[in-house]
Amino acid sequence: MSLRVLTGITTSGTPHLGNYAGAIRPAITASRQAGAESFLFLADYHALIKCDDPARIQRSRLEIAATWLAAGLDTARVTFYRQSDIPEIPELNWLLTCVTSKGLMNRAHAYKASTDANEAAGEELDAGINMGLYCYPVLMAADILMFKAHKVPVGRDQIQHIEMARDVGQRFNHLFGAGRELFVLPEAAIEDNVATLPGLDGRKMSKSYDNTIPLFEGGAKALKAAVARIVTDSKLPGEPKDADNSHLVTLFDAFANAEERAQFRADLRAGLGWGDAKQRFLAVLERDLAPMRAQYDELMSRPEHIEDLLQEGAAKARAVATPFLAELREAVGLRRFNAIPVPVEKKVETAASQLPLFKQYREADGKFYFKLSSHDGRLLLQSQGFDSGRDAGQWVGRLKSEGAAVLECVPASLGEDVSREDVAAALAAFAQ
Amino acid sequence: MSLRVLTGITTSGTPHLGNYAGAIRPAITASRQAGAESFLFLADYHALIKCDDPARIQRSRLEIAATWLAAGLDTARVTFYRQSDIPEIPELNWLLTCVTSKGLMNRAHAYKASTDANEAAGEELDAGINMGLYCYPVLMAADILMFKAHKVPVGRDQIQHIEMARDVGQRFNHLFGAGRELFVLPEAAIEDNVATLPGLDGRKMSKSYDNTIPLFEGGAKALKAAVARIVTDSKLPGEPKDADNSHLVTLFDAFANAEERAQFRADLRAGLGWGDAKQRFLAVLERDLAPMRAQYDELMSRPEHIEDLLQEGAAKARAVATPFLAELREAVGLRRFNAIPVPVEKKVETAASQLPLFKQYREADGKFYFKLSSHDGRLLLQSQGFDSGRDAGQWVGRLKSEGAAVLECVPASLGEDVSREDVAAALAAFAQ
Repeated sequence: MSLRVLTGITTSGTPHLGNYAGAIRPAITASRQAGAESFLFLADYHALIKCDDPARIQRSRLEIAATWLAAGLDTARVTFYRQSDIPEIPELNWLLTCVTSKGLMNRAHAYKASTDANEAAGEELDAGINMGLYCYPVLMAADILMFKAHKVPVGRDQIQHIEMARDVGQRFNHLFGAGRELFVLPEAAIEDNVATLPGLDGRKMSKSYDNTIPLFEGGAKALKAAVARIVTDSKLPGEPKDADNSHLVTLFDAFANAEERAQFRADLRAGLGWGDAKQRFLAVLERDLAPMRAQYDELMSRPEHIEDLLQEGAAKARAVATPFLAELREAVGLRRFNAIPVPVEKKVETAASQLPLFKQYREADGKFYFKLSSHDGRLLLQSQGFDSGRDAGQWVGRLKSEGAAVLECVPASLGEDVSREDVAAALAAFAQ
Repeated sequence: MSLRVLTGITTSGTPHLGNYAGAIRPAITASRQAGAESFLFLADYHALIKCDDPARIQRSRLEIAATWLAAGLDTARVTFYRQSDIPEIPELNWLLTCVTSKGLMNRAHAYKASTDANEAAGEELDAGINMGLYCYPVLMAADILMFKAHKVPVGRDQIQHIEMARDVGQRFNHLFGAGRELFVLPEAAIEDNVATLPGLDGRKMSKSYDNTIPLFEGGAKALKAAVARIVTDSKLPGEPKDADNSHLVTLFDAFANAEERAQFRADLRAGLGWGDAKQRFLAVLERDLAPMRAQYDELMSRPEHIEDLLQEGAAKARAVATPFLAELREAVGLRRFNAIPVPVEKKVETAASQLPLFKQYREADGKFYFKLSSHDGRLLLQSQGFDSGRDAGQWVGRLKSEGAAVLECVPASLGEDVSREDVAAALAAFAQ
């Protein structure tokens, strides 16, 4: 298995320029490297923890998906999906909940920060804290362990969560692996040299400081207006500027090449006015952003196209998750009953036992199958795997009621040395 | 909607005679009453909290299912399913987790009992407590709210959990219902007059006292041996017995009719020996249990038959859960992107736009559909709903690659005034 890298993006809010330079652009660059397999998902179950506004949840998911796609994410290379399209994740979340010690969760930084704040305010420790906040390291462990990710790129504040995922995975392996490593234990890939863009006022660009430069929101006009509001010193055109202590220069650097950077500094030192300097920053910005913005607007006007891409991504992700969850269910004892060897104490012979027999069952790959056997146990027809037991059941129903006519279309193959006539005869028995 | 009653059975251990008389028999009787709709499930996700032995989990689920069926549960009347066959439940569990206050869980009796025990032992409060124990009232709320149950028959120790389910459901209704009552708020149906059978030693029959009489385990032989071990006083045959203070009489009463009860008491007072009395108890027991035991043995020898029944039950339960979860996802903002009205800013004309168009999508009923439209938007083919997006996708793939030949089998209907030739022509466009 190649190195698998997994990244989740919590879908709250609208991406700004700092998110682009600090997270989106480097992740997309990384996803193009050979030898690594990227899983990238919209963490919308996580978004529900802090947001109870359905319209905002919905809007943010769409904007973030469109932003990543417009920024060049290649869904042919990257498995790009919405967490909430993978029902295996909440199920695994429960399996892991049962092996996670409560003491471990008590030590989670995000939870402790909330209880500390309550303590400082003289409130009950758990005042206003919901179970989502408390339990979310388990869900995050499910996100990671589900796809056997080796590396999870995170900031330093998230290292603890990766360690918790390792803990939980290790415990599960120990309890249920029977010597096998069911889960891959993930490692945090620390992003220390990630560009943290300054905002309008020079502090870190962040929604909470209200100092952000928009990425695509509001179009070219809003971008221009924001750039005009970047704080500079009050030196006039013609006066030499201190290029090394200007966050406009830091912003410029994030979008310019080496030559442009050197020129920008030299010109500022030679007296370039801040107004002209901002124009120049806007020009390098627009060189990158304008084509992406056209993409973004186009994507936002066709949400059903984004939906299609995410459904394809979900299918790719579930091709991994469905059989793996089946294996995990098997490991904890949530097995099909057919799988148990039970001593047969007596044989019951009934008229029905002379009929050919349809059997529906589920395999370790998590898929549903059916087969038709003659009354003496000869395999007549073997279906392909279905994602749903009901779809398998519908085919059985049609074969029983419509008989051999359906044989043209049924996704199933004949048993060894079995002719279509054999199957037709067996099906005719049901019609009687 | 008729009154819906929901009962969960935690699948740990093997049912004994006390479980039969106290829970199984009354629940089956209740399920036969008109006007009520019973949902009865094997709570195997709950069993994972306390049991990490896969073989025991698996065995217990099978034994409990076989026991209920042998005891007369009619799966045509009752929706009988395994919790772990309903992936909507762990998903709802997460949605509810995000609206549950942590303070509420801190007050749960089962959790408090564990922290009290730790405190008394001088341990850390959360020592040895897993997140499953702590979070399980949320999962139980999901079990109940998922199926809009009105009544949940419980013992007094479980009332608090039903109140928690009400709390959580109410909060969700308030946050996301937009004035509608998404969830039915359940009520506890207290089972005060449930027969609590005494065990061999006269204390309540319980595995933890090691005083149980087996139900089907070990067959008639084990039953006989257990009855012989029922503790009595040491009065000899011929001596009058104190029938009102004998737990053998209490046990007898649970399986005898009024006439037999009176006769038993009279005979004991007249000097019936304990050995003969036990024979008589065994006889009334076997009158009920022997036919059920034959059923049980038969069922246990054909686990795949139980599996089929449970799969049918799961399909019935999911016919409720799948569309309801789709409604709940819609309410919290986890919506398909197609559903968002976004102003179309410009029209992009490409060569591809002249092709007929396949569209895959998901409806509020949770099912996956596809349709084929001509390039000018006329509906040519409309599929039925599939449980899985991949199945819908496979049909689209076959229609694209195999063309009109597949039209015989595809589960889809033609658009209004559309002929097969129209569709065939459109499909031919893909082949080019």
